[in-house]
Amino acid sequence: MKLELLASFFLLTTCFTAFSQEKQDTAVADKGLIKVSVMYPYAEGKTFNMEYYVTKHMPMVAAFLGANLVKYTIEKGLASGIPNQPLPFMAIGTFYVKSLSDYQAAIAPHGDAIRADFQNYTNIIPIILVSEVVN
Amino acid sequence: MKLELLASFFLLTTCFTAFSQEKQDTAVADKGLIKVSVMYPYAEGKTFNMEYYVTKHMPMVAAFLGANLVKYTIEKGLASGIPNQPLPFMAIGTFYVKSLSDYQAAIAPHGDAIRADFQNYTNIIPIILVSEVVN
Repeated sequence: MKLELLASFFLLTTCFTAFSQEKQDTAVADKGLIKVSVMYPYAEGKTFNMEYYVTKHMPMVAAFLGANLVKYTIEKGLASGIPNQPLPFMAIGTFYVKSLSDYQAAIAPHGDAIRADFQNYTNIIPIILVSEVVN
Repeated sequence: MKLELLASFFLLTTCFTAFSQEKQDTAVADKGLIKVSVMYPYAEGKTFNMEYYVTKHMPMVAAFLGANLVKYTIEKGLASGIPNQPLPFMAIGTFYVKSLSDYQAAIAPHGDAIRADFQNYTNIIPIILVSEVVN
Protein backbone atom coordinates (compact mmCIF):
# COMPACT_ATOMS: atom_id res chain seq x y z
CA MET A 1 0.00 0.00 0.00
CA LYS A 2 2.87 2.35 0.77
CA LEU A 3 4.13 1.75 -2.73
CA GLU A 4 0.81 2.77 -4.27
CA LEU A 5 0.64 5.93 -2.18
CA LEU A 6 4.16 6.76 -3.24
CA ALA A 7 3.19 6.15 -6.85
CA SER A 8 0.20 8.46 -6.50
CA PHE A 9 2.36 11.16 -4.95
CA PHE A 10 4.94 10.77 -7.71
CA LEU A 11 2.28 11.09 -10.40
CA LEU A 12 0.80 14.16 -8.76
CA THR A 13 4.22 15.81 -8.49
CA THR A 14 4.99 14.98 -12.11
CA CYS A 15 1.66 16.43 -13.12
CA PHE A 16 2.26 19.74 -11.32
CA THR A 17 5.83 19.96 -12.57
CA ALA A 18 4.79 19.35 -16.17
CA PHE A 19 1.94 21.84 -15.76
CA SER A 20 4.09 24.69 -14.42
CA GLN A 21 6.74 23.94 -17.06
CA GLU A 22 4.08 24.25 -19.73
CA LYS A 23 2.91 27.61 -18.36
CA GLN A 24 6.48 28.90 -18.32
CA ASP A 25 7.08 27.67 -21.88
CA THR A 26 3.96 29.54 -22.97
CA ALA A 27 5.15 32.86 -21.55
CA VAL A 28 8.57 32.77 -23.21
CA ALA A 29 7.69 30.54 -26.18
CA ASP A 30 7.90 33.26 -28.84
CA LYS A 31 11.25 34.78 -27.79
CA GLY A 32 13.88 34.32 -30.49
CA LEU A 33 11.38 33.33 -33.17
CA ILE A 34 11.33 35.05 -36.55
CA LYS A 35 8.11 36.84 -37.52
CA VAL A 36 7.17 37.37 -41.14
CA SER A 37 4.38 39.96 -41.00
CA VAL A 38 2.38 40.61 -44.17
CA MET A 39 0.83 44.04 -43.61
CA TYR A 40 -1.99 45.48 -45.72
CA PRO A 41 -1.93 49.32 -45.56
CA TYR A 42 -5.29 51.05 -45.49
CA ALA A 43 -6.16 53.64 -48.12
CA GLU A 44 -9.34 55.05 -49.68
CA GLY A 45 -10.91 52.51 -52.06
CA LYS A 46 -8.95 49.55 -50.75
CA THR A 47 -10.83 46.35 -49.94
CA PHE A 48 -10.01 43.27 -47.89
CA ASN A 49 -12.09 40.08 -47.58
CA MET A 50 -11.20 38.83 -44.10
CA GLU A 51 -13.31 35.67 -44.40
CA TYR A 52 -11.42 34.49 -47.50
CA TYR A 53 -8.10 35.45 -45.91
CA VAL A 54 -8.84 33.46 -42.72
CA THR A 55 -10.39 30.38 -44.35
CA LYS A 56 -8.44 30.09 -47.63
CA HIS A 57 -5.31 32.22 -48.12
CA MET A 58 -3.54 31.91 -44.78
CA PRO A 59 -4.15 28.14 -44.39
CA MET A 60 -2.81 27.66 -47.97
CA VAL A 61 0.44 29.51 -47.23
CA ALA A 62 0.76 27.92 -43.77
CA ALA A 63 0.56 24.47 -45.36
CA PHE A 64 3.70 25.24 -47.42
CA LEU A 65 5.78 25.89 -44.29
CA GLY A 66 5.84 22.50 -42.56
CA ALA A 67 7.46 22.05 -39.16
CA ASN A 68 9.31 25.37 -39.47
CA LEU A 69 6.00 27.13 -38.75
CA VAL A 70 5.41 27.48 -34.99
CA LYS A 71 2.09 29.34 -35.37
CA TYR A 72 0.40 32.00 -37.42
CA THR A 73 -1.85 34.86 -36.37
CA ILE A 74 -4.30 37.14 -38.15
CA GLU A 75 -5.33 40.55 -36.91
CA LYS A 76 -7.92 43.01 -38.16
CA GLY A 77 -7.07 46.71 -38.07
CA LEU A 78 -9.62 48.75 -36.10
CA ALA A 79 -8.19 52.27 -35.81
CA SER A 80 -5.11 54.37 -35.38
CA GLY A 81 -4.10 54.68 -31.74
CA ILE A 82 -3.42 58.38 -32.38
CA PRO A 83 -6.52 60.64 -32.56
CA ASN A 84 -7.43 61.99 -36.02
CA GLN A 85 -4.92 59.72 -37.79
CA PRO A 86 -6.08 57.26 -40.48
CA LEU A 87 -6.10 53.49 -39.87
CA PRO A 88 -2.51 52.34 -40.64
CA PHE A 89 -3.30 48.75 -41.69
CA MET A 90 -6.53 46.94 -42.62
CA ALA A 91 -5.09 43.54 -41.73
CA ILE A 92 -1.85 41.80 -40.79
CA GLY A 93 -1.07 38.11 -41.21
CA THR A 94 1.98 36.86 -39.33
CA PHE A 95 3.97 33.64 -39.60
CA TYR A 96 6.12 32.73 -36.56
CA VAL A 97 8.97 30.54 -37.86
CA LYS A 98 12.16 29.05 -36.47
CA SER A 99 14.29 29.75 -39.53
CA LEU A 100 14.03 32.56 -42.09
CA SER A 101 16.04 30.69 -44.73
CA ASP A 102 13.78 27.63 -44.36
CA TYR A 103 10.76 29.92 -44.73
CA GLN A 104 12.18 31.46 -47.89
CA ALA A 105 13.09 28.06 -49.35
CA ALA A 106 9.59 26.72 -48.64
CA ILE A 107 7.79 29.76 -50.08
CA ALA A 108 9.92 30.26 -53.23
CA PRO A 109 8.39 27.47 -55.37
CA HIS A 110 4.86 28.72 -54.49
CA GLY A 111 5.42 32.47 -55.00
CA ASP A 112 3.30 32.66 -58.15
CA ALA A 113 0.40 30.72 -56.58
CA ILE A 114 0.47 32.95 -53.47
CA ARG A 115 0.52 36.18 -55.47
CA ALA A 116 -2.20 34.92 -57.83
CA ASP A 117 -4.46 34.37 -54.80
CA PHE A 118 -4.16 38.03 -53.66
CA GLN A 119 -6.88 39.17 -56.09
CA ASN A 120 -9.33 36.78 -54.42
CA TYR A 121 -9.38 38.86 -51.25
CA THR A 122 -7.74 42.27 -51.70
CA ASN A 123 -6.59 45.04 -54.04
CA ILE A 124 -3.88 46.14 -51.58
CA ILE A 125 -0.17 45.58 -52.25
CA PRO A 126 1.19 44.46 -48.86
CA ILE A 127 4.44 45.40 -47.20
CA ILE A 128 6.34 42.61 -45.48
CA LEU A 129 8.34 42.98 -42.28
CA VAL A 130 10.84 40.35 -41.16
CA SER A 131 11.51 40.78 -37.45
CA GLU A 132 12.84 38.94 -34.43
CA VAL A 133 10.89 38.52 -31.18
CA VAL A 134 13.18 39.97 -28.50
CA ASN A 135 10.68 39.98 -25.63
CA MET B 1 -4.74 -1.87 -3.12
CA LYS B 2 -7.39 -1.67 -5.85
CA LEU B 3 -8.40 1.72 -4.49
CA GLU B 4 -4.86 3.07 -4.71
CA LEU B 5 -4.47 1.83 -8.26
CA LEU B 6 -7.75 3.52 -9.12
CA ALA B 7 -6.54 6.72 -7.47
CA SER B 8 -3.30 6.60 -9.47
CA PHE B 9 -5.24 6.07 -12.68
CA PHE B 10 -7.56 8.96 -11.82
CA LEU B 11 -4.61 11.26 -11.12
CA LEU B 12 -2.92 10.28 -14.36
CA THR B 13 -6.10 10.91 -16.34
CA THR B 14 -6.58 14.27 -14.63
CA CYS B 15 -3.00 15.15 -15.43
CA PHE B 16 -3.34 14.37 -19.13
CA THR B 17 -6.68 16.14 -19.36
CA ALA B 18 -5.34 19.28 -17.66
CA PHE B 19 -2.25 19.14 -19.84
CA SER B 20 -4.09 18.92 -23.16
CA GLN B 21 -6.52 21.63 -22.00
CA GLU B 22 -3.55 23.89 -21.25
CA LYS B 23 -2.07 23.27 -24.69
CA GLN B 24 -5.39 24.15 -26.33
CA ASP B 25 -5.72 27.31 -24.22
CA THR B 26 -2.25 28.37 -25.36
CA ALA B 27 -3.11 28.01 -29.04
CA VAL B 28 -6.27 30.10 -28.88
CA ALA B 29 -5.37 32.35 -25.92
CA ASP B 30 -4.86 35.54 -27.96
CA LYS B 31 -8.05 35.30 -30.04
CA GLY B 32 -10.37 38.23 -29.39
CA LEU B 33 -7.74 40.30 -27.60
CA ILE B 34 -7.04 43.89 -28.60
CA LYS B 35 -3.50 44.68 -29.75
CA VAL B 36 -2.05 48.16 -29.42
CA SER B 37 1.05 48.10 -31.63
CA VAL B 38 3.49 50.99 -31.40
CA MET B 39 5.45 50.85 -34.66
CA TYR B 40 8.70 52.75 -35.29
CA PRO B 41 9.19 53.30 -39.06
CA TYR B 42 12.74 53.04 -40.36
CA ALA B 43 14.29 55.95 -42.25
CA GLU B 44 17.80 57.25 -42.93
CA GLY B 45 19.27 58.88 -39.78
CA LYS B 46 16.73 57.34 -37.42
CA THR B 47 18.01 55.71 -34.23
CA PHE B 48 16.50 53.28 -31.74
CA ASN B 49 18.04 52.10 -28.46
CA MET B 50 16.57 48.62 -28.04
CA GLU B 51 18.18 48.03 -24.64
CA TYR B 52 16.54 51.11 -23.10
CA TYR B 53 13.24 50.22 -24.76
CA VAL B 54 13.28 46.66 -23.37
CA THR B 55 14.54 47.45 -19.87
CA LYS B 56 12.98 50.88 -19.16
CA HIS B 57 10.29 52.21 -21.51
CA MET B 58 8.09 49.16 -22.09
CA PRO B 59 8.09 48.02 -18.44
CA MET B 60 7.13 51.59 -17.41
CA VAL B 61 4.14 51.69 -19.76
CA ALA B 62 3.16 48.08 -18.94
CA ALA B 63 3.03 48.97 -15.24
CA PHE B 64 0.31 51.57 -15.95
CA LEU B 65 -2.02 48.95 -17.47
CA GLY B 66 -2.76 46.66 -14.53
CA ALA B 67 -4.84 43.52 -14.95
CA ASN B 68 -6.14 44.68 -18.36
CA LEU B 69 -2.70 43.82 -19.82
CA VAL B 70 -2.53 40.14 -20.82
CA LYS B 71 1.04 40.37 -22.13
CA TYR B 72 3.34 42.59 -24.13
CA THR B 73 5.83 41.75 -26.84
CA ILE B 74 8.81 43.53 -28.40
CA GLU B 75 10.17 42.78 -31.85
CA LYS B 76 13.23 44.08 -33.67
CA GLY B 77 12.93 44.77 -37.39
CA LEU B 78 15.49 42.86 -39.46
CA ALA B 79 14.58 43.43 -43.11
CA SER B 80 11.81 43.84 -45.62
CA GLY B 81 10.42 40.50 -46.76
CA ILE B 82 10.37 41.90 -50.31
CA PRO B 83 13.77 42.03 -52.10
CA ASN B 84 15.27 45.51 -52.62
CA GLN B 85 12.71 47.18 -50.35
CA PRO B 86 13.81 49.18 -47.29
CA LEU B 87 13.19 47.91 -43.75
CA PRO B 88 9.59 48.97 -42.91
CA PHE B 89 9.97 49.22 -39.11
CA MET B 90 12.99 49.32 -36.78
CA ALA B 91 10.96 48.05 -33.82
CA ILE B 92 7.41 47.30 -32.71
CA GLY B 93 6.15 47.17 -29.13
CA THR B 94 2.74 45.56 -28.66
CA PHE B 95 0.34 45.52 -25.72
CA TYR B 96 -2.27 42.73 -25.70
CA VAL B 97 -5.23 44.00 -23.66
CA LYS B 98 -8.75 42.85 -22.87
CA SER B 99 -10.35 46.27 -23.20
CA LEU B 100 -9.37 49.22 -25.41
CA SER B 101 -11.30 51.75 -23.30
CA ASP B 102 -9.60 50.51 -20.12
CA TYR B 103 -6.24 50.84 -21.92
CA GLN B 104 -7.04 54.41 -22.96
CA ALA B 105 -8.25 55.34 -19.46
CA ALA B 106 -5.09 53.90 -17.88
CA ILE B 107 -2.70 55.58 -20.33
CA ALA B 108 -4.33 59.04 -20.45
CA PRO B 109 -2.99 60.40 -17.12
CA HIS B 110 0.55 59.26 -18.10
CA GLY B 111 0.61 60.52 -21.70
CA ASP B 112 3.12 63.30 -20.99
CA ALA B 113 5.50 61.00 -19.07
CA ILE B 114 5.35 58.39 -21.85
CA ARG B 115 6.03 60.91 -24.63
CA ALA B 116 8.80 62.59 -22.59
CA ASP B 117 10.58 59.22 -22.38
CA PHE B 118 10.69 58.81 -26.20
CA GLN B 119 13.82 60.98 -26.50
CA ASN B 120 15.68 58.56 -24.20
CA TYR B 121 15.65 55.83 -26.86
CA THR B 122 14.59 57.13 -30.28
CA ASN B 123 14.15 60.08 -32.65
CA ILE B 124 11.36 58.29 -34.54
CA ILE B 125 7.72 59.38 -34.32
CA PRO B 126 5.82 56.08 -34.05
CA ILE B 127 2.55 55.12 -35.69
CA ILE B 128 0.06 53.21 -33.55
CA LEU B 129 -2.26 50.46 -34.79
CA VAL B 130 -5.21 49.25 -32.76
CA SER B 131 -6.26 45.83 -34.00
CA GLU B 132 -8.21 42.75 -32.97
CA VAL B 133 -6.74 39.24 -32.97
CA VAL B 134 -9.12 37.22 -35.19
CA ASN B 135 -7.02 34.07 -35.47
